[in-house]
Amino acid sequence: MKISIERSALLRAVARAQSVVERRNTIPILANVLIEAEGDTVSFRATDLDIEVVDRAPAQVERAGASTVNAVTLHEIVRKLPDGALVRLVDDGASGRLSVEAGRSHFALATLPRQDFPVMASSEYSTNFAAPAPVLRRLFDKAKFAISTEETRYYLNGVYMHVADGETGPVLRCVATDGHRLARIDADLPDGAANMAGVIVPRKAVNELRKLLDDDETEIAVSVSETKVRFATPGIVLTSKVIDGTFPDYTRVIPTGNTKRLEVDAGDFARAVDRVATVSSERSRAVKLQLEEDRLVLSVNAPDAGNAEEELVVGYADEPLSIGFNAKYLLEIAGQVDRENAVFLFNSSGDPTLMREGDDASAVYVVMPMRV
Amino acid sequence: MKISIERSALLRAVARAQSVVERRNTIPILANVLIEAEGDTVSFRATDLDIEVVDRAPAQVERAGASTVNAVTLHEIVRKLPDGALVRLVDDGASGRLSVEAGRSHFALATLPRQDFPVMASSEYSTNFAAPAPVLRRLFDKAKFAISTEETRYYLNGVYMHVADGETGPVLRCVATDGHRLARIDADLPDGAANMAGVIVPRKAVNELRKLLDDDETEIAVSVSETKVRFATPGIVLTSKVIDGTFPDYTRVIPTGNTKRLEVDAGDFARAVDRVATVSSERSRAVKLQLEEDRLVLSVNAPDAGNAEEELVVGYADEPLSIGFNAKYLLEIAGQVDRENAVFLFNSSGDPTLMREGDDASAVYVVMPMRV
Repeated sequence: MKISIERSALLRAVARAQSVVERRNTIPILANVLIEAEGDTVSFRATDLDIEVVDRAPAQVERAGASTVNAVTLHEIVRKLPDGALVRLVDDGASGRLSVEAGRSHFALATLPRQDFPVMASSEYSTNFAAPAPVLRRLFDKAKFAISTEETRYYLNGVYMHVADGETGPVLRCVATDGHRLARIDADLPDGAANMAGVIVPRKAVNELRKLLDDDETEIAVSVSETKVRFATPGIVLTSKVIDGTFPDYTRVIPTGNTKRLEVDAGDFARAVDRVATVSSERSRAVKLQLEEDRLVLSVNAPDAGNAEEELVVGYADEPLSIGFNAKYLLEIAGQVDRENAVFLFNSSGDPTLMREGDDASAVYVVMPMRV
Repeated sequence: MKISIERSALLRAVARAQSVVERRNTIPILANVLIEAEGDTVSFRATDLDIEVVDRAPAQVERAGASTVNAVTLHEIVRKLPDGALVRLVDDGASGRLSVEAGRSHFALATLPRQDFPVMASSEYSTNFAAPAPVLRRLFDKAKFAISTEETRYYLNGVYMHVADGETGPVLRCVATDGHRLARIDADLPDGAANMAGVIVPRKAVNELRKLLDDDETEIAVSVSETKVRFATPGIVLTSKVIDGTFPDYTRVIPTGNTKRLEVDAGDFARAVDRVATVSSERSRAVKLQLEEDRLVLSVNAPDAGNAEEELVVGYADEPLSIGFNAKYLLEIAGQVDRENAVFLFNSSGDPTLMREGDDASAVYVVMPMRV
């Protein structure tokens, strides 16, 4: 293999590769990125056996071939090369070294045999559809804060992407929950997605996917099989195994009879929650909400440190209510609101509470109360 | 106590206080800041028993008095209050609470008795002088990277500030070393400093002092006794115990007979060292310098990962030399150079090397070589 590639294109590709490889590996080759050159393209492939990412970049290929080197080391080197540098990668196949040259810098990095590199088996994708990057970004961004980190409930360690019945017909829906709070986000159903089997996309894949979604103009090709999900842009293919489990029936959890309606500026609300929570250093800080006509009092009482109280002018016309929540959950949920006021719908101090943005039902959040 | 104070002035004072208090305290009062109001001034005092900082800020004092509350909690609260807020602090002396009010936020923080707060005993300062902030900034900034972190060599855990004989007369000098490298920085001797006894200013005091030195216009009043050192601006007084030990005779360590002279752009040099060091993940990475006429080759050889080499065009007219250094030490020393080229003076591959900025002898660095 003998190629010349722009430092910026190389940096982008190896940055993606090094973020997929696991830092602690018992299998040495999994720390490596597989570089394959052919025609006028170089592909960079990295995997942790659950996720595989392949990044294609244009390059001058003098001699086709392949090599594998430590992804983190190569990334560090490329990152430190001067902007605008042209990088030459040469593997003569005999020395067990990949030569990396740029200007007066010369590196020889240890390689491992290409044939040892585990390439993810291809899959029969039964569903294929395309979705604009901003649509997927919204679906996953607004859901992922609720992903569970409890490994024993592995089926909650991801975002459940599936087709569901929305208010006005079938929708593409993402749901995540950790048992304490839940996010349910809907988007218009893309052509070709109607028959998709629901899949649980693991947290790490959600995070890697996010990096493909920054450009508003990109169309993402989504392919789904029973065991895998694939997201592809013209230059990048991200393939992930899906979580082998059954996502619980979340519909039972979403309250439908909550009638007490609070409308509040999400930013003001979040800042007030953040302030009153300061007096308690406990992780599970309970914030008490006391609602009266057009008035919300937030309070925290920490016997050792003191107490805090803050009043907000809000929209509320129902009977007085007193209810407690974990401060962190309230902050995270309020942080999802980006367009309109936050609307909370309560039932009683012991029942799950629903939150949405204005009257938009395409993104709803549920949070369990705490006793205060 | 009953005062009103601008949020920004309060934030500055409690930010300083919370940085002095230790996070893990067995003595509860040491987590607190002592707030004392009298006349039209409020003072904020914090200590860890080794360092004390007192910050004075203007305020409307309705009722003089004092209170002590947790510095970290108060800082967090004030930080989260909206910019421009006016904050009211009230301690009625009976409830055991300090009331903090701003807008519609109200906090009641647990207090501890004022008389329990340890106020540092005053000292007889035998030396008093004034120095512009930029002078002290240079003295301490350029020395502190070399402070030792080995607790067994406690007498190296600070910067040795003393009066010494410079090339053209007595100077105010700061020295720090950890046995592997050394920094010696000189400044003109301020009036009144001539008889100062040398003191070792502990690392934490050096870091706190640094925060007083950002404004080029500030004059710092420095006072030194056998056991304490005090740095004061019109609003802030920082007092620190000095390290009770003898700083070793560093003059023996500074080579005087090194004649092989390398002149190199400090930035180019540092970036090249940083790049070649990438191939080795070990903490004590050795970088080899090979010098020939006007040519420097930097190289690292890591048997597992590979090797790296980079060539620089430099000024060098002496006989060829090969010498190795810890990469981190080279980077830190090169990072001190801000005005001119770095000049290295070598003797042999086994002897300490001297570095300075151009021909300026007021800041010299010594670094021990490594076998490569």
